[in-house]
Amino acid sequence: MAEKYEYEYFNVTFPVEYVAHIEISRPEKLNAFIEKMWLNLSVIVKRLSHDPNVRSIILTGAGDRAFTAGLDVQAASQGTLSQGSSDTARTATALRRHIFEFQDCITALEKCEKPIIAVLHGVSYGLALDLSLSCDIRLCAADTRFSVKEVDIGIAADIGTLSRLPKAVGNFSWVKDVALSARIFGSAEAEKVGLVSGVYGGKAEAVSEALKLATLIASKSPVAVQGTKELLNYSRDRSVEEGLRYTAIWNQAMLQTKDMKDAMLSGLQKKTPKFSKL
Amino acid sequence: MAEKYEYEYFNVTFPVEYVAHIEISRPEKLNAFIEKMWLNLSVIVKRLSHDPNVRSIILTGAGDRAFTAGLDVQAASQGTLSQGSSDTARTATALRRHIFEFQDCITALEKCEKPIIAVLHGVSYGLALDLSLSCDIRLCAADTRFSVKEVDIGIAADIGTLSRLPKAVGNFSWVKDVALSARIFGSAEAEKVGLVSGVYGGKAEAVSEALKLATLIASKSPVAVQGTKELLNYSRDRSVEEGLRYTAIWNQAMLQTKDMKDAMLSGLQKKTPKFSKL
Amino acid sequence: MAEKYEYEYFNVTFPVEYVAHIEISRPEKLNAFIEKMWLNLSVIVKRLSHDPNVRSIILTGAGDRAFTAGLDVQAASQGTLSQGSSDTARTATALRRHIFEFQDCITALEKCEKPIIAVLHGVSYGLALDLSLSCDIRLCAADTRFSVKEVDIGIAADIGTLSRLPKAVGNFSWVKDVALSARIFGSAEAEKVGLVSGVYGGKAEAVSEALKLATLIASKSPVAVQGTKELLNYSRDRSVEEGLRYTAIWNQAMLQTKDMKDAMLSGLQKKTPKFSKL
Amino acid sequence: MAEKYEYEYFNVTFPVEYVAHIEISRPEKLNAFIEKMWLNLSVIVKRLSHDPNVRSIILTGAGDRAFTAGLDVQAASQGTLSQGSSDTARTATALRRHIFEFQDCITALEKCEKPIIAVLHGVSYGLALDLSLSCDIRLCAADTRFSVKEVDIGIAADIGTLSRLPKAVGNFSWVKDVALSARIFGSAEAEKVGLVSGVYGGKAEAVSEALKLATLIASKSPVAVQGTKELLNYSRDRSVEEGLRYTAIWNQAMLQTKDMKDAMLSGLQKKTPKFSKL
Amino acid sequence: MAEKYEYEYFNVTFPVEYVAHIEISRPEKLNAFIEKMWLNLSVIVKRLSHDPNVRSIILTGAGDRAFTAGLDVQAASQGTLSQGSSDTARTATALRRHIFEFQDCITALEKCEKPIIAVLHGVSYGLALDLSLSCDIRLCAADTRFSVKEVDIGIAADIGTLSRLPKAVGNFSWVKDVALSARIFGSAEAEKVGLVSGVYGGKAEAVSEALKLATLIASKSPVAVQGTKELLNYSRDRSVEEGLRYTAIWNQAMLQTKDMKDAMLSGLQKKTPKFSKL
Amino acid sequence: MAEKYEYEYFNVTFPVEYVAHIEISRPEKLNAFIEKMWLNLSVIVKRLSHDPNVRSIILTGAGDRAFTAGLDVQAASQGTLSQGSSDTARTATALRRHIFEFQDCITALEKCEKPIIAVLHGVSYGLALDLSLSCDIRLCAADTRFSVKEVDIGIAADIGTLSRLPKAVGNFSWVKDVALSARIFGSAEAEKVGLVSGVYGGKAEAVSEALKLATLIASKSPVAVQGTKELLNYSRDRSVEEGLRYTAIWNQAMLQTKDMKDAMLSGLQKKTPKFSKL
Repeated sequence: MAEKYEYEYFNVTFPVEYVAHIEISRPEKLNAFIEKMWLNLSVIVKRLSHDPNVRSIILTGAGDRAFTAGLDVQAASQGTLSQGSSDTARTATALRRHIFEFQDCITALEKCEKPIIAVLHGVSYGLALDLSLSCDIRLCAADTRFSVKEVDIGIAADIGTLSRLPKAVGNFSWVKDVALSARIFGSAEAEKVGLVSGVYGGKAEAVSEALKLATLIASKSPVAVQGTKELLNYSRDRSVEEGLRYTAIWNQAMLQTKDMKDAMLSGLQKKTPKFSKL
Repeated sequence: MAEKYEYEYFNVTFPVEYVAHIEISRPEKLNAFIEKMWLNLSVIVKRLSHDPNVRSIILTGAGDRAFTAGLDVQAASQGTLSQGSSDTARTATALRRHIFEFQDCITALEKCEKPIIAVLHGVSYGLALDLSLSCDIRLCAADTRFSVKEVDIGIAADIGTLSRLPKAVGNFSWVKDVALSARIFGSAEAEKVGLVSGVYGGKAEAVSEALKLATLIASKSPVAVQGTKELLNYSRDRSVEEGLRYTAIWNQAMLQTKDMKDAMLSGLQKKTPKFSKL
Repeated sequence: MAEKYEYEYFNVTFPVEYVAHIEISRPEKLNAFIEKMWLNLSVIVKRLSHDPNVRSIILTGAGDRAFTAGLDVQAASQGTLSQGSSDTARTATALRRHIFEFQDCITALEKCEKPIIAVLHGVSYGLALDLSLSCDIRLCAADTRFSVKEVDIGIAADIGTLSRLPKAVGNFSWVKDVALSARIFGSAEAEKVGLVSGVYGGKAEAVSEALKLATLIASKSPVAVQGTKELLNYSRDRSVEEGLRYTAIWNQAMLQTKDMKDAMLSGLQKKTPKFSKL
Repeated sequence: MAEKYEYEYFNVTFPVEYVAHIEISRPEKLNAFIEKMWLNLSVIVKRLSHDPNVRSIILTGAGDRAFTAGLDVQAASQGTLSQGSSDTARTATALRRHIFEFQDCITALEKCEKPIIAVLHGVSYGLALDLSLSCDIRLCAADTRFSVKEVDIGIAADIGTLSRLPKAVGNFSWVKDVALSARIFGSAEAEKVGLVSGVYGGKAEAVSEALKLATLIASKSPVAVQGTKELLNYSRDRSVEEGLRYTAIWNQAMLQTKDMKDAMLSGLQKKTPKFSKL
Repeated sequence: MAEKYEYEYFNVTFPVEYVAHIEISRPEKLNAFIEKMWLNLSVIVKRLSHDPNVRSIILTGAGDRAFTAGLDVQAASQGTLSQGSSDTARTATALRRHIFEFQDCITALEKCEKPIIAVLHGVSYGLALDLSLSCDIRLCAADTRFSVKEVDIGIAADIGTLSRLPKAVGNFSWVKDVALSARIFGSAEAEKVGLVSGVYGGKAEAVSEALKLATLIASKSPVAVQGTKELLNYSRDRSVEEGLRYTAIWNQAMLQTKDMKDAMLSGLQKKTPKFSKL
Repeated sequence: MAEKYEYEYFNVTFPVEYVAHIEISRPEKLNAFIEKMWLNLSVIVKRLSHDPNVRSIILTGAGDRAFTAGLDVQAASQGTLSQGSSDTARTATALRRHIFEFQDCITALEKCEKPIIAVLHGVSYGLALDLSLSCDIRLCAADTRFSVKEVDIGIAADIGTLSRLPKAVGNFSWVKDVALSARIFGSAEAEKVGLVSGVYGGKAEAVSEALKLATLIASKSPVAVQGTKELLNYSRDRSVEEGLRYTAIWNQAMLQTKDMKDAMLSGLQKKTPKFSKL
């Protein structure tokens, strides 16, 4: 099964039934991203999204030093961003197409039908936040150093952080502080403001906890789990009234699933339910 | 006055002038909800909403063990949800109507013109969250055990939790964690993420504190209090710009109230103001 | 340069290159606001917004006792709010125009292209919250006493607090609690719920820290900083999808700045970059 | 069956299988509306909405002279609108509750799951537009005299015309013209701007054509027809992107209906399909 | 009274009680706009908006040849648009500020509390559409030649046409046709698609009809008229549900006006009502 | 160049510089669509969108008899729609994925950066409307027979018609009429309600006129043309205020184009401007 997921710079494994593990793997460069990486990640995630053998996913970075140091700035400065027509409008068009493609790759994690748990550790700068904010759950090791790094290279972050961070945590003053100053902050601060929902001793422990959580989620009805992800993301961005309406329309189909009976019966019988693939 | 509010499974009392107390009362079943209960609760709340003798409300669960264990699954499995036409679209229509009716009953608490303070204790699963998230203020006893329980019965929660929880707390990673895993969490965690704004020793203490707060709120101008509830709920779901505009239109009428003069004068004279009924 | 900013009740100074300091100065009245003050503040902020010599701003209150005690109620009761035609609709029109003008003055801080750091201390009631919630970052001294005071004078707050507070912090239950009860709360509580992102010993220390942060922000590319403020405010109020799209359109122009190369080069050379005025 | 629908001021009949006919019946007063009428109409329409024996509805006015002359102003001037507390804010609250209730009664036609065809004739003022704009299809007799009458009695129309008219026709200049001037216009003008989709010689002919159209619609799959109404109303008010998404979620259930096979088979066999009740 | 409205390039007169007439007056240049003109127009309109002696407004162009030929391109090419920093991002900032200011001047017509009737004739290119689409009612002379001219000078129209035209007429295919081709079209076509609501023989006749309509509108209750404009503009841009809610909140104040009684009484007595100033 | 666009069932040619012509080519089946066709069309359009040699596009159907008869129902009944798991929720998931993919293919025409002119003739049912409503301009031959056909096969149209039609024409009553009845209507009716912006004698003449219009559009600045398409589509779906803001942000980059100077200079010199590729 893992063969279907062989893409450069990523290791995809299946440590537990129904659980996939994506490892960003360019440790010699602190897992810094070049264009091929976000394209590959997007393909992997889109395939996992429809793979009936997968119900939850964890995302980690290879090596001890970094989840990811962010965009590989050196590579980027020699790529698309540095080119351009001699006409501002035409360069703008090229840049716009590039940003949309990049954004779409990262948003693929949010759109993935299965929940994704990001586990951050070590250096977690720039794209590390864009990426993990597009995941569903963020856990981290105690040694994680975070930074919304983009202003330090002269740009307003455009791959997702500025759109998702204000809705992920509950301290808008803090959001502005870290986004405007690019200062580095640690795991305790990340937990306090609600950026992560768990801090663990080291990377190994954090990954282990993530795997436990992924396994727990994978044991639930995939109809219920995937609906819950969809409805939470939908509601985050809309009024409660719109959220309720969409939920009712969603569930007019989904409440007809056999998983409900199976789950209830298993509950009464204290058994572990088995659900069909989805 | 309490006679107007005699509905099965609920005790409605008026412990302090202008304060109503709704008690969910089916303690032998851990206050689990059957259909008649949400229909009755909705009627009670709609009446209180327009009752000029009421300015604030507290909502509690009878008995020591539970605010509510949620939906009475056994009853539900024999009711509407289990029926259905042999045609998927026709069953979907029946389910949709059922969900909308159920949602409307719970939303009645949010639409109630008077603020409602929920006091949770003991078992507070599933519907306990839908219900209390539709209230304005959430307090709890230290022994409260919370769970977004729905995935455990094979469904994505559809009576409000998935739409309101992301806007009630400031840790979207944690919201996904508890909603996808259905794990039980306690009062300390609820307070840390901002789900409740106060934790008290036991149920009695929590109810007592809620009553104090309700009494304080009931002592203010009802024009100001009811406007504040309305404008906060409106603004939660819309842009700041839309919120400001609606606020101005609301207050072009409400600033003409005599309550302003009475409140200011009382403030200067260090007296307790008396406001007309609303 | 300071001469351009001489407006009654405000001291505007430039303590560090590219940093402006606005001090509310009516200490004998606890910096309570009369109409002229919000009109003047609005003019100051609009000028700073386009002043190429300014990249970040701090806002403080003169004296030891108060950031601001809020609206000067005594003055207000003799002003616009107390007048009115004998016809309710015509009075409503006058009130609506007044509220819109007042709101616009406070919103000018949010619309200012440069980030504004508010430093609260002592009495910080009513308008203190409307004002500081329209700023980007909120720091405070340990002695700060906050209150959403409006219900105590018989009104629902209409200059911004009810629209911005639910989006600034992550505890909607707490927002309702303080807005409905008008109770006074301290700096520890403000920090816990995420209303402020830093608490410092005394006013002097808090101002000093704010100045450091403003200086840090002013050292970054103004293209990046101003874009970051714009995109965060835009995204707070819209779906992630809308936020991403707007971000791409914004950056199709802004990524063409020379600041990017300058910032990257300085980073590699461990030098402090110099950016052109904006 | 008609007995279930006996409500004062309305005649409800079932002229053709699956087609209901609601006649407004207060011809001696040109079918002018008193409060009891909109309350009754709302009840009738809500019942028809869930009645499996009904698939389409026509709405007409009794007598030769008027569809309806609108609100019975004389009655209204003695009712709710004329009362009020001595405090402006309290009167505003009473008015707001009254308007919401009135709006909800008229919106019940738009929310009715079955399509409603309004047939206008003769005097069709004020509420005639609010009512018919809440219907799905508007036909009229050649003698119809329309007017957005409300400014002539000193109010901005508040029961739906100002919200629905701009989205019902494609000439915003004309909308403003008739709404600001309250001038009377005829059927030719109504057809030209798109307010009605058919003009017929006299009332009898118009009703007859409406009945034909209702019969045609009632012969289609009710799953398809009711979905079409829902999706068109949803999409009118939202972006195309939102419309498409909701449509997909709706149809993930509805495409599982047997009506599809029955409809296709009947088409191939040139037979009239029979669909189960809904 | 006219003295208060003496601004270069505009003649403001008061031909009838409560009716203002703004004439664009630069006929030697076909009323082409230079920056000073939109700034002046904005000031005039804002003052009229609050002038209690004005209840409706007509806007015309001086001379026989043109309502306006649009932007004075020659002047513009020597002004702001042609300047710019050597850095793209800084030029973008200057352009953005310029566009926002220009847009705000034109939007001032839409925000004006009193209805504005635009009368087009002769050459009506580019800004002629931006301007008249920001008015409430559009009438024209038979000789009017319209063009969405901007693509012919290499730009996408940015002062309002592209945002307002799709909502002003009901033929999106036609909107794209004229906006993408910049072709000239006449009054018959404008009337057919709903861009104007009246075509008259010559300019004099069109102005005379506009004056009649303005006089009729000015005879109605200003509370009702101004509310109608506000609610129609609000509803155009939002869902019916949002429109209804805002309408109810607006009218909770406005239905308390004495104009209602005066209007009804006058209607019964067949007299012309007199309304207080607003 | 045409070789790059060889996809089964479509002929792509380049009749004029900068103009592409896509012909749907399955005339023996009245150009009815099978899945491969919408996938291919989507690929073609996405490539044309970024092809610098293309500035405008026309879309036609091969043969004399039909633009397209819509979905090939026979093929569809043997494909995805007919399959499905034995569990309703799992079938719903498969259907949802299928609908989203299908919708995305059709929406690709709307998202194409270059304007697309659809030319309809003969049988134009079901998907013919979904497709052409996703184009920018609709022209037709006099013999065109239109139908929103979906209810006749038991479904609510889900590939775009129900979301786009209410915003494409200005007669919501007519939209409901044709969508609920599936009745066939002709070119005169289509023109009257604004569904098409031009009707021509026969297919050949209609195609010829479309080509002229495409050629005219292709002669304009591609920066201006592509911006105009983008801004019109954006504004159709949002408030005027949102439209104006996005427009300003778009043009802060695009007004820096050299096309402006070239276009203006060419206008003054009565020459045809030459614009760089985009």
